[in-house]
Amino acid sequence: MTDRDLTLADVVALLVESGDSGPASHRYSEDVPMPSVEILTSIVEDLRTVLFPGYFGTSEITPDTMPYYIGAKLDKIERQLADQINRGYCFVCDKTKTDRCTNCIERSKELARQFITKLPMIRQLLLSDVEAAYDGDPAAKTHGETIFCYPSIRAMTNHRIAHELYKLEVDIIPRIIGEMAHSDTGIDIHPGATIGKSFFMDHGTGTVIGETCVIGDNVRVYQGVTLGAKSFPKGDDERLIKGLPRHPMVEDDVIIYAGATILGRITIGRGAVIGGNVWITRDVPAGAQIVQSRALQQSFIDGGGI
Amino acid sequence: MTDRDLTLADVVALLVESGDSGPASHRYSEDVPMPSVEILTSIVEDLRTVLFPGYFGTSEITPDTMPYYIGAKLDKIERQLADQINRGYCFVCDKTKTDRCTNCIERSKELARQFITKLPMIRQLLLSDVEAAYDGDPAAKTHGETIFCYPSIRAMTNHRIAHELYKLEVDIIPRIIGEMAHSDTGIDIHPGATIGKSFFMDHGTGTVIGETCVIGDNVRVYQGVTLGAKSFPKGDDERLIKGLPRHPMVEDDVIIYAGATILGRITIGRGAVIGGNVWITRDVPAGAQIVQSRALQQSFIDGGGI
Amino acid sequence: MTDRDLTLADVVALLVESGDSGPASHRYSEDVPMPSVEILTSIVEDLRTVLFPGYFGTSEITPDTMPYYIGAKLDKIERQLADQINRGYCFVCDKTKTDRCTNCIERSKELARQFITKLPMIRQLLLSDVEAAYDGDPAAKTHGETIFCYPSIRAMTNHRIAHELYKLEVDIIPRIIGEMAHSDTGIDIHPGATIGKSFFMDHGTGTVIGETCVIGDNVRVYQGVTLGAKSFPKGDDERLIKGLPRHPMVEDDVIIYAGATILGRITIGRGAVIGGNVWITRDVPAGAQIVQSRALQQSFIDGGGI
Amino acid sequence: MTDRDLTLADVVALLVESGDSGPASHRYSEDVPMPSVEILTSIVEDLRTVLFPGYFGTSEITPDTMPYYIGAKLDKIERQLADQINRGYCFVCDKTKTDRCTNCIERSKELARQFITKLPMIRQLLLSDVEAAYDGDPAAKTHGETIFCYPSIRAMTNHRIAHELYKLEVDIIPRIIGEMAHSDTGIDIHPGATIGKSFFMDHGTGTVIGETCVIGDNVRVYQGVTLGAKSFPKGDDERLIKGLPRHPMVEDDVIIYAGATILGRITIGRGAVIGGNVWITRDVPAGAQIVQSRALQQSFIDGGGI
Amino acid sequence: MTDRDLTLADVVALLVESGDSGPASHRYSEDVPMPSVEILTSIVEDLRTVLFPGYFGTSEITPDTMPYYIGAKLDKIERQLADQINRGYCFVCDKTKTDRCTNCIERSKELARQFITKLPMIRQLLLSDVEAAYDGDPAAKTHGETIFCYPSIRAMTNHRIAHELYKLEVDIIPRIIGEMAHSDTGIDIHPGATIGKSFFMDHGTGTVIGETCVIGDNVRVYQGVTLGAKSFPKGDDERLIKGLPRHPMVEDDVIIYAGATILGRITIGRGAVIGGNVWITRDVPAGAQIVQSRALQQSFIDGGGI
Amino acid sequence: MTDRDLTLADVVALLVESGDSGPASHRYSEDVPMPSVEILTSIVEDLRTVLFPGYFGTSEITPDTMPYYIGAKLDKIERQLADQINRGYCFVCDKTKTDRCTNCIERSKELARQFITKLPMIRQLLLSDVEAAYDGDPAAKTHGETIFCYPSIRAMTNHRIAHELYKLEVDIIPRIIGEMAHSDTGIDIHPGATIGKSFFMDHGTGTVIGETCVIGDNVRVYQGVTLGAKSFPKGDDERLIKGLPRHPMVEDDVIIYAGATILGRITIGRGAVIGGNVWITRDVPAGAQIVQSRALQQSFIDGGGI
Repeated sequence: MTDRDLTLADVVALLVESGDSGPASHRYSEDVPMPSVEILTSIVEDLRTVLFPGYFGTSEITPDTMPYYIGAKLDKIERQLADQINRGYCFVCDKTKTDRCTNCIERSKELARQFITKLPMIRQLLLSDVEAAYDGDPAAKTHGETIFCYPSIRAMTNHRIAHELYKLEVDIIPRIIGEMAHSDTGIDIHPGATIGKSFFMDHGTGTVIGETCVIGDNVRVYQGVTLGAKSFPKGDDERLIKGLPRHPMVEDDVIIYAGATILGRITIGRGAVIGGNVWITRDVPAGAQIVQSRALQQSFIDGGGI
Repeated sequence: MTDRDLTLADVVALLVESGDSGPASHRYSEDVPMPSVEILTSIVEDLRTVLFPGYFGTSEITPDTMPYYIGAKLDKIERQLADQINRGYCFVCDKTKTDRCTNCIERSKELARQFITKLPMIRQLLLSDVEAAYDGDPAAKTHGETIFCYPSIRAMTNHRIAHELYKLEVDIIPRIIGEMAHSDTGIDIHPGATIGKSFFMDHGTGTVIGETCVIGDNVRVYQGVTLGAKSFPKGDDERLIKGLPRHPMVEDDVIIYAGATILGRITIGRGAVIGGNVWITRDVPAGAQIVQSRALQQSFIDGGGI
Repeated sequence: MTDRDLTLADVVALLVESGDSGPASHRYSEDVPMPSVEILTSIVEDLRTVLFPGYFGTSEITPDTMPYYIGAKLDKIERQLADQINRGYCFVCDKTKTDRCTNCIERSKELARQFITKLPMIRQLLLSDVEAAYDGDPAAKTHGETIFCYPSIRAMTNHRIAHELYKLEVDIIPRIIGEMAHSDTGIDIHPGATIGKSFFMDHGTGTVIGETCVIGDNVRVYQGVTLGAKSFPKGDDERLIKGLPRHPMVEDDVIIYAGATILGRITIGRGAVIGGNVWITRDVPAGAQIVQSRALQQSFIDGGGI
Repeated sequence: MTDRDLTLADVVALLVESGDSGPASHRYSEDVPMPSVEILTSIVEDLRTVLFPGYFGTSEITPDTMPYYIGAKLDKIERQLADQINRGYCFVCDKTKTDRCTNCIERSKELARQFITKLPMIRQLLLSDVEAAYDGDPAAKTHGETIFCYPSIRAMTNHRIAHELYKLEVDIIPRIIGEMAHSDTGIDIHPGATIGKSFFMDHGTGTVIGETCVIGDNVRVYQGVTLGAKSFPKGDDERLIKGLPRHPMVEDDVIIYAGATILGRITIGRGAVIGGNVWITRDVPAGAQIVQSRALQQSFIDGGGI
Repeated sequence: MTDRDLTLADVVALLVESGDSGPASHRYSEDVPMPSVEILTSIVEDLRTVLFPGYFGTSEITPDTMPYYIGAKLDKIERQLADQINRGYCFVCDKTKTDRCTNCIERSKELARQFITKLPMIRQLLLSDVEAAYDGDPAAKTHGETIFCYPSIRAMTNHRIAHELYKLEVDIIPRIIGEMAHSDTGIDIHPGATIGKSFFMDHGTGTVIGETCVIGDNVRVYQGVTLGAKSFPKGDDERLIKGLPRHPMVEDDVIIYAGATILGRITIGRGAVIGGNVWITRDVPAGAQIVQSRALQQSFIDGGGI
Repeated sequence: MTDRDLTLADVVALLVESGDSGPASHRYSEDVPMPSVEILTSIVEDLRTVLFPGYFGTSEITPDTMPYYIGAKLDKIERQLADQINRGYCFVCDKTKTDRCTNCIERSKELARQFITKLPMIRQLLLSDVEAAYDGDPAAKTHGETIFCYPSIRAMTNHRIAHELYKLEVDIIPRIIGEMAHSDTGIDIHPGATIGKSFFMDHGTGTVIGETCVIGDNVRVYQGVTLGAKSFPKGDDERLIKGLPRHPMVEDDVIIYAGATILGRITIGRGAVIGGNVWITRDVPAGAQIVQSRALQQSFIDGGGI
């Protein structure tokens, strides 16, 4: 029987058969659906209205009415987030191997409550990022413009939210929040990455920052920069060992130009400047300035490369 | 008369005049509207619910109810897809030059029917991609996480759907499905590209895979990788010759790091490793390891480049 | 008191306190809300239906009905755009320092009116871009396909609209329109960039074109190309001097391959070809062909880089 | 086996079995779906914007732009209506008994085209209804208020549209348009009813006007009035004979107060006044004034009635 | 202090104070929100697609695909309905007085499961109502038209669903489903009313059928008919005694014309015909024909009434 | 030329011609669009969440969070309502005859502010209506059920809002709010009607309460009751004199049964009971009990009526 001869009923049967076990299908814990990208998007948009009131959401805000709006949003966010945290917890939960399901709803509520208390601190960090964007881009005419339009601020808002949830050991939700920003801005920051204050990514498309990166204060990177892993040690089971520190450490005041690829647990020293399109897999000393080898002028038809 | 003096009626007249012939406006075949990006988006989302039941769409699925959900979705998909295939066919149809319009509705239904029979095979390939993502990324904690969150799986789902439609010689629809993934993930794979099993693109933003690429099994590429064309031969009419093989062939087990640019109908041999940011326009032997020339430490103010 | 002890009321109070002054919150001019990304999206989509009738919007258009559709859309666009222009004006307006608020509504209407008169010219430029896309990509089978599917045409439509608004000194709205295309396509063109006719960006993801770039006719660039600034002179107040010419000038008939990084107020001479992944910070003469230094074959484990 | 023991699969089987033949399920003619209440609603709303420009739809209309808006709407309406007319035709089509399916798409387009030419006349009739509402209700302060708010004008707009379609022998669509108004306003006018100019229904809820009613000019009715049928002659097959004249004829200048029930093919003569809550099944002469028998004052507990 | 002097904060305080206790505000049981009218509307629309496949929802249904569609819908309905049943249960639950909350989720699932098994029986009853509508209205041209357009079938679908839920002692949800039909059609049937087969309400607006009515087979009623209660005995606490039989019993084959008001626990005997606008509070014998007293012709200015 | 020969352009021209003057089209005051039924609907829904917190809108409300939710909603309502009030004002404004346009925006804001201060009083009245519904309907099991489901409470919420706006002399907006309830519930109360506390309309469909009605406390009416005008005096210009008292006065503790029609400036005395389907145009003394004349048992074929 060729594919062409399959009836609808045959195709259904084949898909059910191969979907009935293994990772193809997800059978969720009773009454707890998958995390909802749609609701998480709404939660993050609500957080934007709380962190930058007047720029997002109902735009007319006065000192008199700000408490009402922030209070109402926070209460809504806390409840919705608790539910999503619980869904994420159940999503990764393997009931056959664990008994951790006790009190997972209460635990999720407690985590959401703790997250809310981090918001004033997140606001302070984001304000330092806004200042860095305004100071770092000659095209920026006002601070407000960077808040409302800049991919860097949008991505860092998602990241600083996701990172706090990551530190609270929330499952999968931080990753989803990071991927939202990735899809919107082309900036891919793993929620585990530690990033200091006053961070600015100009343009940003294609920039990747790995899970175990540690980035200092006042760092500026451009589009297409990779701070990635180089080697992937395997354990005795021939599977990757997960969770090892494997991404670069970037000290304060570093600048990294477009398209640089920096791999491995190396250190880029304080104040170093990395030129565009370079490939770096070893430590760079503080204050160093690294650029690509001089390009060649030659007949293009003969080609470059090896 | 300067632009400033134009009235609304003048602007309308100028736009109608310049839009009345040439490519500016599209006058579709009677009763057959343009393909709908909105409906195609819905079709692809429905296909995700069929290929990975429980992860997308109605999340509670049991062995008892899976046949109902898959059967109902497939029937809906088949009908909607047949309509879109027909729209695509009419979109590129030049009635003045051809008489191919006979039976185009029947033909579209037959193509949609054939496509449906490919789904079990597409599922198998995607499961190998899921395994590759889980095996290739130390940050991946479960298989389910890669299905639900990873741009690589999202883009490959679109690609494997689009590629089957491309092989069925469906017009334009495969390209639209590819561009959807491009917009969502920054990964641009032409539907014509042939890709083996267990393919993984980590991060992926900015990766480009051209129409005539042939990629083997177990290949891993990172963000910003280009597998492109180098030269564009023209025919006697001074127009590009379309359809020639012009993109790289990548054999099994190759790894290509971030930002590598590989152009032309060359071969990257089995098991080769291509470092980041290199520019390659000649064959690379099996097992080779290619990296960029050593970068220079120098005064940044004096600049690199030529 | 640790974060954990904060009540909802405490968090509200902290957020109100730190949001009540400084850039964290926006207090808009009376009765003029923030620009709306949603409405601007709708305006740009409506402009697409006017510039390429039959491809977007109501798809059945005949010579008889085209004037009605174009006239009705233009009237709607003009009114909605005038309102958004006014919102943008008020967004950047610092009432404490200026008295420019007189007649801002009338001024916005006049600017919207002028913009409408530029549309026939924008159409002509876009048709040259369509021709360039069709001529430059062997995978393009019809002109219509490039209009309907290609990120380059989508991004250039946004850019040519945004650039005219930029020339009319409209505040912030051009930037928002540029960022919409950036999010959709990964192509980041500052509205200030001057771009000649017949411009084509193949694939395009990660390409960045800065505010003061001047690009000639018949230029083709690939994905991940940066035309950026290199140095950022500061004024006496230790702040960046804004508005200086600081990005490359690219003459007619230049081709720039994927991932090239070209920085500073340099000139890429007529007909030059820039290979992929190079870093250029000095002038390139007309007709030159520049490629990266030859890559090295070596043990990957030992690594490249410095 | 009791109901309680039925499994999901059993219920599915029972529903499929009883739905597979008879009127329970509808199997539509190939490729022609059911009429869409949603699209018909949108068509009628679009017609309101054409009949009363500036009150509905884009509200800013000037003499300069009115032709664009009306032209664009009419073109859209004509195409959408043609499709719905065709769906309606196929809905009632019994292919086993007829060969009328030839050219049904062309026929539907012609009917939609003819309907469009009736709109100027429909406008004139509705303007007379507006005048009647303004003149007949002491609470009406402007003509515009009756157009924008009054159920009578809303219901009559639907009716005058539906009645023209009924006269063109369009199937089922007129009835759907009538039921939309019925649901919105509680006024149930069969599309077949013939109604003269300057008709006003104050309040209107519960008023019913039957298929073969003939109503003159300047008639006013209140809520809860029934102009219905009294007897239903059956044919030899013991089924109702359909299509016979069976509803009242109401001559010019009649007023009918709330709750009157008037049944059968009788005539209410010119200028008659019918009081509330009466039951009339015989002719009423011109100029007559009919009221209910005097009510009784009595102990309510003992009750009225027979 | 007059109302005019109240600040926003004052109004908030007053509303919080008066809303903090008593019936003004609802404080729901933990984690169980109010029943959702929106979701219940969607459930009922889904039930329509199951009861009358092809008329509602995805309209192309074949014998091959019907099981998939019905199975998928039923599974979705059962889960959504179980959740709404639980919400309704919690809405009326007074935790301070009862311990009935044990297992309320399980109980709700069981009730939803039982409801699903009633659907084949509900289908049979509705088909008898369709037949009655077709037989009873000379304006009905096909059975399908009555299913798709007639308020009577729409209202009876809601009622027969709601009545089964009422019999299962589901709280409040049946009432909400009844009120949906009331708002759509103006027909107000209490879910408790017992109605035999082949029931038809022509036009229907304003018809009211009370909680304890018992209606036989083949009954036909017109618009504005009330089958209501007359007296409301109070208990020792001076509150109404709830749940007593207090509405009419209508035997088989009765016809009741428009606007008749029939009150109290009386019996309308088999085959009786009740004329329009009468007021009846005593039994009517089988076969009787009741009409209003003869109306008077008199000067309207002098008025009727007492 | 018959209708059939009209082209699209002809129809456009005819509609423009007849719509260019007279009441057919509305040309609104510059920059002030028509009132928006959609936004007014949202305002009224928001008011429901403020008046009955927890029943409508975000359902989880606690004493701690209630001030935030109510404060945020009230601020939003006040601003949106001010804009709608201004639109209504401009809608009825005849600029050619008046100079009242000065400060109309400020005036609208002041009226919205005043309206907000009435909400605590409106809450009190509605709570009395809730009590009346619970006490008056044996089918009501809880107070909450009447708030969430009963048309009477829905209609009275709209009415008590609309009536306060009417007293503030807001143009047309009160009428629109009244018509919303009319469409939803079939209950048509003119915003001008004065209604005391503890008012209950059971079922309600078809009930009409006119502009100058004055209704006391503890009144109960059933469906289909009309409290209307009887005569319409005309002025010297042969036009109706608008604004005269012309509807009934209903004293405390009156009950009016279904379908009663009560017309003219008469008084229904305290405690009177009006039976169903009567027609009353003269005063009814306190305590009277009025019922319809005894109906007749006769041959239906011979008919009743005159």
